[in-house]
Amino acid sequence: MSGVFLTLEGIDGAGKSTQARLLADRLSDAGKGVVLTREPGGAPGAEEIRDLLVRGEPGRWSAETELLLFTAARRDHVERTIRPAITRGDVVICDRFVDSTRAYQGSGALREKVDVLHDLMIGLDADLTLIFDLDPQAGLARAGQRATPGEDRFEQKGLGFLTDLRAAYLEIARAEPDRCAVIDASGEPEAIHADVWSVVSAKLAVA
Amino acid sequence: MSGVFLTLEGIDGAGKSTQARLLADRLSDAGKGVVLTREPGGAPGAEEIRDLLVRGEPGRWSAETELLLFTAARRDHVERTIRPAITRGDVVICDRFVDSTRAYQGSGALREKVDVLHDLMIGLDADLTLIFDLDPQAGLARAGQRATPGEDRFEQKGLGFLTDLRAAYLEIARAEPDRCAVIDASGEPEAIHADVWSVVSAKLAVA
Repeated sequence: MSGVFLTLEGIDGAGKSTQARLLADRLSDAGKGVVLTREPGGAPGAEEIRDLLVRGEPGRWSAETELLLFTAARRDHVERTIRPAITRGDVVICDRFVDSTRAYQGSGALREKVDVLHDLMIGLDADLTLIFDLDPQAGLARAGQRATPGEDRFEQKGLGFLTDLRAAYLEIARAEPDRCAVIDASGEPEAIHADVWSVVSAKLAVA
Repeated sequence: MSGVFLTLEGIDGAGKSTQARLLADRLSDAGKGVVLTREPGGAPGAEEIRDLLVRGEPGRWSAETELLLFTAARRDHVERTIRPAITRGDVVICDRFVDSTRAYQGSGALREKVDVLHDLMIGLDADLTLIFDLDPQAGLARAGQRATPGEDRFEQKGLGFLTDLRAAYLEIARAEPDRCAVIDASGEPEAIHADVWSVVSAKLAVA
Protein backbone atom coordinates (compact mmCIF):
# COMPACT_ATOMS: atom_id res chain seq x y z
CA MET A 1 0.00 0.00 0.00
CA SER A 2 1.31 3.44 -0.85
CA GLY A 3 1.13 6.19 1.77
CA VAL A 4 0.02 9.79 1.60
CA PHE A 5 2.17 12.91 1.66
CA LEU A 6 0.63 16.00 3.30
CA THR A 7 2.41 19.36 3.58
CA LEU A 8 1.51 22.31 5.82
CA GLU A 9 2.46 25.79 4.70
CA GLY A 10 2.05 29.42 5.77
CA ILE A 11 3.81 32.26 7.59
CA ASP A 12 5.37 31.80 11.03
CA GLY A 13 2.78 32.06 13.78
CA ALA A 14 -0.03 30.66 11.61
CA GLY A 15 -0.19 27.59 13.85
CA LYS A 16 1.25 24.99 11.49
CA SER A 17 3.17 23.09 14.18
CA THR A 18 0.17 22.91 16.54
CA GLN A 19 -2.10 21.79 13.72
CA ALA A 20 0.43 19.23 12.56
CA ARG A 21 0.41 17.62 16.02
CA LEU A 22 -3.39 17.69 16.32
CA LEU A 23 -3.71 16.14 12.87
CA ALA A 24 -1.11 13.46 13.63
CA ASP A 25 -2.97 12.46 16.81
CA ARG A 26 -6.30 12.31 15.00
CA LEU A 27 -4.90 10.17 12.17
CA SER A 28 -3.23 7.83 14.68
CA ASP A 29 -6.56 7.47 16.47
CA ALA A 30 -8.09 6.57 13.09
CA GLY A 31 -5.57 3.73 12.80
CA LYS A 32 -3.11 5.30 10.38
CA GLY A 33 0.67 5.05 10.64
CA VAL A 34 1.83 8.66 10.89
CA VAL A 35 5.21 10.34 10.44
CA LEU A 36 5.34 13.95 11.63
CA THR A 37 8.29 15.89 10.27
CA ARG A 38 9.34 19.43 9.29
CA GLU A 39 11.67 21.44 7.07
CA PRO A 40 14.36 22.48 6.89
CA GLY A 41 15.59 19.29 8.54
CA GLY A 42 13.74 16.05 9.22
CA ALA A 43 16.73 13.71 8.81
CA PRO A 44 20.14 13.75 10.55
CA GLY A 45 22.05 15.21 7.59
CA ALA A 46 19.26 17.63 6.72
CA GLU A 47 19.29 18.88 10.33
CA GLU A 48 22.96 19.79 9.97
CA ILE A 49 22.16 21.76 6.82
CA ARG A 50 19.28 23.38 8.75
CA ASP A 51 21.79 24.76 11.25
CA LEU A 52 23.57 26.58 8.41
CA LEU A 53 20.26 28.05 7.22
CA VAL A 54 18.53 29.24 10.37
CA ARG A 55 21.48 30.65 12.34
CA GLY A 56 23.58 33.74 11.65
CA GLU A 57 23.11 37.07 9.91
CA PRO A 58 20.29 37.79 7.41
CA GLY A 59 22.85 38.47 4.63
CA ARG A 60 24.89 35.37 5.37
CA TRP A 61 23.87 33.57 2.18
CA SER A 62 22.73 34.95 -1.16
CA ALA A 63 19.26 33.91 -2.28
CA GLU A 64 20.84 31.49 -4.76
CA THR A 65 23.10 29.77 -2.21
CA GLU A 66 20.20 29.57 0.23
CA LEU A 67 18.06 27.93 -2.45
CA LEU A 68 20.75 25.29 -3.06
CA LEU A 69 21.07 24.57 0.68
CA PHE A 70 17.31 24.21 1.10
CA THR A 71 17.21 21.88 -1.87
CA ALA A 72 20.10 19.79 -0.48
CA ALA A 73 18.34 19.47 2.88
CA ARG A 74 15.09 18.58 1.13
CA ARG A 75 16.74 15.87 -0.97
CA ASP A 76 18.19 14.25 2.16
CA HIS A 77 14.86 14.55 3.99
CA VAL A 78 12.94 12.99 1.09
CA GLU A 79 15.43 10.11 0.71
CA ARG A 80 15.91 9.25 4.37
CA THR A 81 12.53 10.05 5.93
CA ILE A 82 9.66 10.86 3.56
CA ARG A 83 9.96 8.27 0.78
CA PRO A 84 10.60 5.33 3.14
CA ALA A 85 7.49 6.32 5.13
CA ILE A 86 5.33 6.62 2.01
CA THR A 87 6.61 3.22 0.86
CA ARG A 88 5.60 1.72 4.23
CA GLY A 89 2.09 3.08 3.67
CA ASP A 90 2.25 5.80 6.33
CA VAL A 91 0.75 9.26 6.24
CA VAL A 92 3.58 11.82 6.22
CA ILE A 93 2.73 15.23 7.68
CA CYS A 94 5.46 17.71 6.78
CA ASP A 95 5.59 21.21 8.31
CA ARG A 96 6.91 23.25 5.31
CA PHE A 97 8.10 21.84 1.99
CA VAL A 98 8.84 23.29 -1.45
CA ASP A 99 6.03 25.87 -1.31
CA SER A 100 7.94 27.60 1.48
CA THR A 101 10.94 27.83 -0.82
CA ARG A 102 8.74 29.16 -3.60
CA ALA A 103 7.13 31.75 -1.32
CA TYR A 104 10.30 32.85 0.54
CA GLN A 105 12.72 32.95 -2.37
CA GLY A 106 10.66 32.95 -5.49
CA SER A 107 10.41 36.20 -7.39
CA GLY A 108 11.41 36.87 -10.98
CA ALA A 109 14.23 34.76 -12.37
CA LEU A 110 14.84 32.93 -9.10
CA ARG A 111 11.26 31.69 -8.85
CA GLU A 112 11.77 29.83 -12.11
CA LYS A 113 15.00 28.31 -10.77
CA VAL A 114 13.16 27.01 -7.69
CA ASP A 115 10.87 25.03 -9.96
CA VAL A 116 13.67 23.77 -12.21
CA LEU A 117 15.70 22.63 -9.18
CA HIS A 118 12.67 20.94 -7.64
CA ASP A 119 11.89 19.00 -10.80
CA LEU A 120 15.56 18.11 -11.37
CA MET A 121 16.63 17.13 -7.84
CA ILE A 122 13.54 16.38 -5.74
CA GLY A 123 10.76 15.10 -8.00
CA LEU A 124 8.22 14.55 -5.21
CA ASP A 125 5.06 16.60 -4.70
CA ALA A 126 2.53 16.55 -1.91
CA ASP A 127 -0.79 14.78 -2.38
CA LEU A 128 -2.41 17.56 -0.37
CA THR A 129 -1.05 20.92 0.82
CA LEU A 130 -2.78 22.91 3.57
CA ILE A 131 -2.01 26.61 3.36
CA PHE A 132 -2.65 28.31 6.72
CA ASP A 133 -3.64 31.89 5.99
CA LEU A 134 -3.23 34.61 8.61
CA ASP A 135 -2.75 38.37 8.80
CA PRO A 136 1.03 38.95 9.18
CA GLN A 137 0.53 41.24 12.22
CA ALA A 138 -1.21 38.39 14.06
CA GLY A 139 1.47 35.97 12.87
CA LEU A 140 4.28 38.17 14.17
CA ALA A 141 2.57 38.48 17.55
CA ARG A 142 2.19 34.72 17.86
CA ALA A 143 5.64 33.86 16.49
CA GLY A 144 7.33 36.36 18.84
CA GLN A 145 6.03 34.44 21.82
CA ARG A 146 7.88 31.25 20.95
CA ALA A 147 10.93 31.99 18.80
CA THR A 148 13.74 29.48 19.33
CA PRO A 149 16.81 31.37 20.65
CA GLY A 150 19.28 31.81 17.77
CA GLU A 151 16.85 30.54 15.13
CA ASP A 152 15.45 33.93 14.17
CA ARG A 153 17.23 34.61 10.87
CA PHE A 154 14.02 34.71 8.84
CA GLU A 155 11.86 36.40 11.48
CA GLN A 156 14.20 39.42 11.41
CA LYS A 157 12.99 40.27 7.93
CA GLY A 158 9.92 42.19 9.13
CA LEU A 159 6.30 42.90 8.33
CA GLY A 160 6.62 43.91 4.66
CA PHE A 161 8.35 40.63 3.92
CA LEU A 162 5.62 38.63 5.68
CA THR A 163 2.94 40.47 3.72
CA ASP A 164 4.63 39.49 0.45
CA LEU A 165 5.00 35.95 1.76
CA ARG A 166 1.30 35.65 2.54
CA ALA A 167 0.44 36.85 -0.97
CA ALA A 168 2.87 34.32 -2.46
CA TYR A 169 1.24 31.42 -0.58
CA LEU A 170 -2.22 32.48 -1.72
CA GLU A 171 -0.96 32.71 -5.30
CA ILE A 172 0.35 29.13 -5.07
CA ALA A 173 -3.06 27.99 -3.81
CA ARG A 174 -4.78 29.75 -6.72
CA ALA A 175 -2.38 28.20 -9.24
CA GLU A 176 -2.79 24.62 -7.94
CA PRO A 177 -6.32 24.27 -6.56
CA ASP A 178 -6.33 20.45 -6.86
CA ARG A 179 -3.31 20.09 -4.57
CA CYS A 180 -3.82 23.06 -2.22
CA ALA A 181 -6.49 23.97 0.35
CA VAL A 182 -6.45 27.34 2.11
CA ILE A 183 -7.26 27.18 5.84
CA ASP A 184 -8.31 30.30 7.78
CA ALA A 185 -5.78 30.35 10.63
CA SER A 186 -7.19 33.30 12.58
CA GLY A 187 -9.39 31.34 15.00
CA GLU A 188 -8.79 29.06 17.96
CA PRO A 189 -6.74 25.87 17.48
CA GLU A 190 -9.78 23.58 17.90
CA ALA A 191 -11.79 25.42 15.24
CA ILE A 192 -8.84 25.41 12.82
CA HIS A 193 -8.34 21.70 13.46
CA ALA A 194 -11.97 21.02 12.56
CA ASP A 195 -11.42 22.70 9.17
CA VAL A 196 -8.17 20.76 8.68
CA TRP A 197 -9.84 17.46 9.51
CA SER A 198 -12.68 18.16 7.11
CA VAL A 199 -10.24 18.57 4.21
CA VAL A 200 -7.86 15.76 5.18
CA SER A 201 -10.49 13.15 6.01
CA ALA A 202 -12.14 13.72 2.64
CA LYS A 203 -8.79 13.28 0.89
CA LEU A 204 -7.87 10.13 2.81
CA ALA A 205 -11.38 8.71 2.96
CA VAL A 206 -11.19 8.30 6.74
CA ALA A 207 -13.59 9.58 9.38
CA MET B 1 40.68 45.33 -16.49
CA SER B 2 39.16 41.88 -16.20
CA GLY B 3 41.10 39.16 -14.45
CA VAL B 4 41.78 35.55 -15.34
CA PHE B 5 40.27 32.42 -13.81
CA LEU B 6 42.53 29.35 -13.68
CA THR B 7 41.44 25.98 -12.24
CA LEU B 8 43.64 23.04 -11.26
CA GLU B 9 42.17 19.54 -11.40
CA GLY B 10 43.22 15.93 -10.91
CA ILE B 11 43.22 13.09 -8.37
CA ASP B 12 44.49 13.54 -4.82
CA GLY B 13 48.27 13.27 -4.67
CA ALA B 14 48.77 14.69 -8.17
CA GLY B 15 50.47 17.74 -6.69
CA LYS B 16 47.80 20.35 -7.36
CA SER B 17 48.30 22.26 -4.11
CA THR B 18 52.08 22.42 -4.50
CA GLN B 19 51.74 23.53 -8.10
CA ALA B 20 49.12 26.12 -7.19
CA ARG B 21 51.55 27.72 -4.72
CA LEU B 22 54.49 27.65 -7.16
CA LEU B 23 52.31 29.21 -9.85
CA ALA B 24 50.97 31.89 -7.50
CA ASP B 25 54.53 32.88 -6.53
CA ARG B 26 55.66 33.03 -10.14
CA LEU B 27 52.69 35.17 -11.18
CA SER B 28 53.24 37.51 -8.23
CA ASP B 29 56.88 37.87 -9.27
CA ALA B 30 55.62 38.76 -12.76
CA GLY B 31 53.61 41.61 -11.22
CA LYS B 32 50.16 40.02 -11.22
CA GLY B 33 47.63 40.30 -8.43
CA VAL B 34 46.96 36.68 -7.42
CA VAL B 35 44.21 35.00 -5.38
CA LEU B 36 44.94 31.40 -4.42
CA THR B 37 41.88 29.45 -3.35
CA ARG B 38 40.45 25.93 -3.33
CA GLU B 39 37.22 23.91 -3.28
CA PRO B 40 35.16 22.88 -1.55
CA GLY B 41 35.44 26.08 0.49
CA GLY B 42 37.24 29.31 -0.32
CA ALA B 43 34.80 31.65 1.47
CA PRO B 44 33.56 31.62 5.09
CA GLY B 45 30.12 30.15 4.29
CA ALA B 46 31.53 27.73 1.73
CA GLU B 47 34.01 26.48 4.35
CA GLU B 48 31.13 25.57 6.65
CA ILE B 49 29.51 23.61 3.84
CA ARG B 50 32.91 21.98 3.21
CA ASP B 51 32.86 20.61 6.76
CA LEU B 52 29.61 18.79 5.96
CA LEU B 53 31.15 17.32 2.80
CA VAL B 54 34.60 16.13 3.86
CA ARG B 55 33.85 14.72 7.31
CA GLY B 56 31.85 11.64 8.28
CA GLU B 57 31.00 8.29 6.72
CA PRO B 58 31.28 7.60 2.95
CA GLY B 59 27.51 6.90 2.76
CA ARG B 60 26.55 9.99 4.71
CA TRP B 61 25.05 11.79 1.70
CA SER B 62 23.57 10.41 -1.48
CA ALA B 63 25.27 11.44 -4.71
CA GLU B 64 22.41 13.86 -5.38
CA THR B 65 22.56 15.59 -1.99
CA GLU B 66 26.34 15.79 -2.24
CA LEU B 67 26.00 17.43 -5.67
CA LEU B 68 23.65 20.07 -4.23
CA LEU B 69 26.02 20.79 -1.33
CA PHE B 70 29.01 21.14 -3.64
CA THR B 71 27.00 23.49 -5.85
CA ALA B 72 25.90 25.57 -2.84
CA ALA B 73 29.51 25.88 -1.64
CA ARG B 74 30.62 26.79 -5.17
CA ARG B 75 27.97 29.48 -5.53
CA ASP B 76 29.12 31.10 -2.27
CA HIS B 77 32.79 30.81 -3.28
CA VAL B 78 32.15 32.36 -6.70
CA GLU B 79 30.10 35.25 -5.24
CA ARG B 80 32.30 36.11 -2.29
CA THR B 81 35.82 35.30 -3.52
CA ILE B 82 36.22 34.48 -7.22
CA ARG B 83 34.09 37.09 -9.02
CA PRO B 84 35.28 40.02 -6.87
CA ALA B 85 38.90 39.03 -7.61
CA ILE B 86 38.27 38.72 -11.34
CA THR B 87 36.56 42.12 -11.28
CA ARG B 88 39.64 43.61 -9.58
CA GLY B 89 41.76 42.26 -12.43
CA ASP B 90 43.49 39.54 -10.40
CA VAL B 91 44.51 36.07 -11.50
CA VAL B 92 42.44 33.53 -9.55
CA ILE B 93 44.07 30.11 -9.08
CA CYS B 94 41.48 27.64 -7.83
CA ASP B 95 42.46 24.14 -6.64
CA ARG B 96 39.43 22.11 -7.87
CA PHE B 97 36.25 23.51 -9.43
CA VAL B 98 33.32 22.07 -11.38
CA ASP B 99 35.43 19.49 -13.23
CA SER B 100 36.01 17.74 -9.89
CA THR B 101 32.24 17.52 -9.45
CA ARG B 102 31.89 16.19 -12.97
CA ALA B 103 34.62 13.60 -12.47
CA TYR B 104 33.65 12.51 -8.92
CA GLN B 105 29.91 12.41 -9.34
CA GLY B 106 29.21 12.39 -13.01
CA SER B 107 28.05 9.15 -14.56
CA GLY B 108 24.83 8.48 -16.41
CA ALA B 109 21.84 10.61 -15.45
CA LEU B 110 23.69 12.42 -12.67
CA ARG B 111 26.44 13.68 -14.99
CA GLU B 112 23.81 15.52 -16.97
CA LYS B 113 22.40 17.04 -13.76
CA VAL B 114 25.88 18.33 -12.84
CA ASP B 115 25.94 20.32 -16.06
CA VAL B 116 22.35 21.58 -15.72
CA LEU B 117 23.01 22.72 -12.14
CA HIS B 118 26.26 24.41 -13.15
CA ASP B 119 24.62 26.34 -15.97
CA LEU B 120 21.59 27.24 -13.81
CA MET B 121 23.27 28.22 -10.53
CA ILE B 122 26.97 28.98 -11.19
CA GLY B 123 27.38 30.26 -14.74
CA LEU B 124 31.15 30.78 -14.52
CA ASP B 125 33.77 28.73 -16.35
CA ALA B 126 37.53 28.78 -16.11
CA ASP B 127 39.58 30.55 -18.77
CA LEU B 128 42.14 27.76 -18.45
CA THR B 129 42.00 24.41 -16.63
CA LEU B 130 45.15 22.42 -15.87
CA ILE B 131 44.46 18.71 -15.46
CA PHE B 132 47.24 17.02 -13.49
CA ASP B 133 47.45 13.46 -14.72
CA LEU B 134 48.98 10.72 -12.55
CA ASP B 135 48.76 6.96 -12.07
CA PRO B 136 46.31 6.40 -9.17
CA GLN B 137 48.79 4.10 -7.32
CA ALA B 138 51.29 6.94 -7.23
CA GLY B 139 48.56 9.38 -6.22
CA LEU B 140 47.45 7.17 -3.31
CA ALA B 141 51.04 6.84 -2.09
CA ARG B 142 51.54 10.62 -2.13
CA ALA B 143 48.11 11.47 -0.71
CA GLY B 144 48.53 8.95 2.12
CA GLN B 145 51.54 10.88 3.37
CA ARG B 146 49.61 14.06 4.03
CA ALA B 147 45.93 13.34 4.61
CA THR B 148 44.28 15.85 6.93
CA PRO B 149 42.97 13.97 10.01
CA GLY B 150 39.21 13.55 9.67
CA GLU B 151 39.11 14.83 6.08
CA ASP B 152 39.46 11.43 4.42
CA ARG B 153 35.89 10.75 3.30
CA PHE B 154 36.77 10.65 -0.38
CA GLU B 155 40.14 8.94 0.01
CA GLN B 156 38.40 5.94 1.60
CA LYS B 157 36.85 5.10 -1.73
CA GLY B 158 39.90 3.17 -3.02
CA LEU B 159 41.94 2.45 -6.12
CA GLY B 160 39.14 1.44 -8.52
CA PHE B 161 37.38 4.72 -7.85
CA LEU B 162 40.57 6.72 -8.49
CA THR B 163 41.13 4.88 -11.76
CA ASP B 164 37.65 5.87 -12.94
CA LEU B 165 38.31 9.40 -11.74
CA ARG B 166 41.50 9.69 -13.77
CA ALA B 167 39.67 8.50 -16.87
CA ALA B 168 36.89 11.03 -16.26
CA TYR B 169 39.37 13.92 -16.03
CA LEU B 170 41.06 12.85 -19.26
CA GLU B 171 37.67 12.64 -20.95
CA ILE B 172 36.89 16.22 -19.88
CA ALA B 173 40.22 17.35 -21.36
CA ARG B 174 39.42 15.58 -24.64
CA ALA B 175 35.95 17.14 -24.78
CA GLU B 176 37.14 20.71 -24.12
CA PRO B 177 40.65 21.07 -25.60
CA ASP B 178 40.45 24.87 -25.83
CA ARG B 179 39.88 25.23 -22.08
CA CYS B 180 41.88 22.27 -20.75
CA ALA B 181 45.58 21.35 -20.76
CA VAL B 182 46.77 17.97 -19.46
CA ILE B 183 49.95 18.14 -17.34
CA ASP B 184 52.06 15.03 -16.69
CA ALA B 185 52.21 14.98 -12.87
CA SER B 186 54.58 12.03 -12.46
CA GLY B 187 57.87 13.96 -12.25
CA GLU B 188 59.51 16.27 -9.71
CA PRO B 189 57.69 19.46 -8.65
CA GLU B 190 60.17 21.75 -10.45
CA ALA B 191 59.74 19.90 -13.76
CA ILE B 192 55.95 19.92 -13.45
CA HIS B 193 56.03 23.62 -12.65
CA ALA B 194 58.02 24.28 -15.82
CA ASP B 195 55.26 22.62 -17.85
CA VAL B 196 52.58 24.56 -15.96
CA TRP B 197 54.36 27.85 -16.54
CA SER B 198 54.74 27.15 -20.22
CA VAL B 199 50.98 26.75 -20.61
CA VAL B 200 49.94 29.57 -18.27
CA SER B 201 52.40 32.17 -19.51
CA ALA B 202 51.25 31.58 -23.08
CA LYS B 203 47.63 32.04 -22.00
CA LEU B 204 48.30 35.20 -20.00
CA ALA B 205 50.95 36.61 -22.35
CA VAL B 206 53.45 37.02 -19.49
CA ALA B 207 57.02 35.71 -19.27
